[in-house]
Amino acid sequence: MNQSIAPNRENERFQRGWDKLREIDGEAGERVVEALADIAPDFARYLIEFPFGDIYSRPQLDLKSREIAVVAALTALGNAAPQLKVHIHGALNVGCSREEVIEVVMQMAVYAGFPAALNGLFAAREVFAERDAAEAVE
Amino acid sequence: MNQSIAPNRENERFQRGWDKLREIDGEAGERVVEALADIAPDFARYLIEFPFGDIYSRPQLDLKSREIAVVAALTALGNAAPQLKVHIHGALNVGCSREEVIEVVMQMAVYAGFPAALNGLFAAREVFAERDAAEAVE
Amino acid sequence: MNQSIAPNRENERFQRGWDKLREIDGEAGERVVEALADIAPDFARYLIEFPFGDIYSRPQLDLKSREIAVVAALTALGNAAPQLKVHIHGALNVGCSREEVIEVVMQMAVYAGFPAALNGLFAAREVFAERDAAEAVE
Amino acid sequence: MNQSIAPNRENERFQRGWDKLREIDGEAGERVVEALADIAPDFARYLIEFPFGDIYSRPQLDLKSREIAVVAALTALGNAAPQLKVHIHGALNVGCSREEVIEVVMQMAVYAGFPAALNGLFAAREVFAERDAAEAVE
Amino acid sequence: MNQSIAPNRENERFQRGWDKLREIDGEAGERVVEALADIAPDFARYLIEFPFGDIYSRPQLDLKSREIAVVAALTALGNAAPQLKVHIHGALNVGCSREEVIEVVMQMAVYAGFPAALNGLFAAREVFAERDAAEAVE
Amino acid sequence: MNQSIAPNRENERFQRGWDKLREIDGEAGERVVEALADIAPDFARYLIEFPFGDIYSRPQLDLKSREIAVVAALTALGNAAPQLKVHIHGALNVGCSREEVIEVVMQMAVYAGFPAALNGLFAAREVFAERDAAEAVE
Repeated sequence: MNQSIAPNRENERFQRGWDKLREIDGEAGERVVEALADIAPDFARYLIEFPFGDIYSRPQLDLKSREIAVVAALTALGNAAPQLKVHIHGALNVGCSREEVIEVVMQMAVYAGFPAALNGLFAAREVFAERDAAEAVE
Repeated sequence: MNQSIAPNRENERFQRGWDKLREIDGEAGERVVEALADIAPDFARYLIEFPFGDIYSRPQLDLKSREIAVVAALTALGNAAPQLKVHIHGALNVGCSREEVIEVVMQMAVYAGFPAALNGLFAAREVFAERDAAEAVE
Repeated sequence: MNQSIAPNRENERFQRGWDKLREIDGEAGERVVEALADIAPDFARYLIEFPFGDIYSRPQLDLKSREIAVVAALTALGNAAPQLKVHIHGALNVGCSREEVIEVVMQMAVYAGFPAALNGLFAAREVFAERDAAEAVE
Repeated sequence: MNQSIAPNRENERFQRGWDKLREIDGEAGERVVEALADIAPDFARYLIEFPFGDIYSRPQLDLKSREIAVVAALTALGNAAPQLKVHIHGALNVGCSREEVIEVVMQMAVYAGFPAALNGLFAAREVFAERDAAEAVE
Repeated sequence: MNQSIAPNRENERFQRGWDKLREIDGEAGERVVEALADIAPDFARYLIEFPFGDIYSRPQLDLKSREIAVVAALTALGNAAPQLKVHIHGALNVGCSREEVIEVVMQMAVYAGFPAALNGLFAAREVFAERDAAEAVE
Repeated sequence: MNQSIAPNRENERFQRGWDKLREIDGEAGERVVEALADIAPDFARYLIEFPFGDIYSRPQLDLKSREIAVVAALTALGNAAPQLKVHIHGALNVGCSREEVIEVVMQMAVYAGFPAALNGLFAAREVFAERDAAEAVE
């Protein structure tokens, strides 16, 4: 791992968070972290330590449910399309089916309106296409 | 059921929605519907038919996951406290534990900030108190 | 008019705005202005000059359409209930029927979700009750 | 019409909605529906049935007012630019002038701020350019 | 400090955060923390550790600027009135004048609209009244 | 200055606003104004008169604090990326350091979530790159 992102690797929260980030997001999450290295490396560290080291590592809720929650929230908010895509990937990585992801996004038409749900469906379509393309080259 | 809310009771979507509303929200959901009877009875009908008759009745996603999704979304949006409370009740009614509800709300601190999560936790506390009071009188 | 709110009464924009505010909102709008007199009198002046003196005075769109637009937007935003109520009053004052107001609010279920529309309908109900009570004492 | 989108063509709500969608949005609306055919055909059906079959078909509010309401709401929300463009087209299709559309968007500076209104004006400009280009080739 | 909120008092981030919370919010901030003790004590800990222990403790930006930023953001978001009040108190505690707070809130009329600014001004007025009442009993 | 944007140049608010716009935003702000000339010239005038002529010209809060407030608010709102970039430029123009801008944006993770802060950091990076490129050609 890039040393400038991880100045203090014996930090228990950081290590736990890094492992959780890799488990859920694979390389997509790592790329977001590296994108921050030149502009706000401290923020990359916080991103790993708090969301992943503290919250996602908590055992009281399973990862599938956590990713369903995030996909729902980001679809409803409608202003974070890049992160919504990262989490649709994450949901699929931890065991949600494409059908389940689509159901969560569609359901947001009830709580945030049809535009929010439509834009979430278009984000899901991009994610599915990226995954199909990645599988095609394996 | 109040006839003015259900002008066309043989409507398959309405009946399916009414049954689903009762399954998830029990009487809390029925009270919202009745509150609309004098001002917008057609909207009460749409509320039963589309969210419950169409969306919640879909089998591709279980009710626990659906309520987790809504609690997350409404916590993140932060502007629908009454409906968030109805759905925290709903989540508990369909099998989520209080601990799981708290986890979903806390997780929203990552996606919508600490104020949104705090206000969601305060809503959850009100719901728990209502349920404790209701059980106390049984 | 309170001199502290209108330091420069020969200001054309202010006078035009004051007249427009009274035309649309009657006394409800004036009360909002007076509520600001002790904490931010300059802001009361801006409120009269820009929204009412500049925007609402423009002839290219009629007042009924303008109030429909505001009721829709504030219902969708879901975080400005006091102002939504002022504008439901305003819509009724400039010629919208209660039925038309209800239609606009219900339509927002499509664009901002059912919670936003529900909360808008509850605000409308409060406004109708206030107007019924006011008429009862006349 | 594509059979996969309309499995049950004798559905009264669907047919009414399809006709209303074509009346307001012409081909732009149909394209959104077809874009969903591969990822969420059921959602395309809901989109036609509820917003258009149920809400837009209601006679209590005219289509011009309905499109003014949507343009206002989506400008204020600021997170649904594609749908805002579809509805600016819709507003023009049902009889609003370009001047009236611009007025509605500008007015949103008062209720959602200048950035929201600016981005709405830029969306309107794109729509006007699309329409000018389409007319140029006729 | 309540032991149930601070299970690990030698935690450097927690101690730093607790001191910073007291410096900015005095007792108002402590009360929010205690309010969580029964429902989500872990969240109270995160609230102290990340926002205060990590972010507010950073020296690269002064506390006055930080509180100006929060008052602006919460006014613009318009859906977190309790937290906006806590931070208006915080801004005044760290050296902002009442006049400066009012300026920040008024400025949000440009970026989030007049309703958001109005509701922020009403929150500020409540805070000023609370502080005047507190001083009166000293 | 283009006469169609400034029909009434002796207007005190307009002149004051135009000078303030140039002081804060330099040419970036002027370009936004000119972009409106063909579609809504009146709105360009309002943009100069109210935000800049009225609000930004007020002496009770310094420009650095005002730009910190806007960068915070637009980062939190998350739906006005173009305007956020204009104001990051503005903050740097009036004396904020790049480090201070990054701090404000990072802090928004606490109040609007990590996605909002991330997208704000990416906007800041674009602005820094634009400024580095501009300096390179001088």
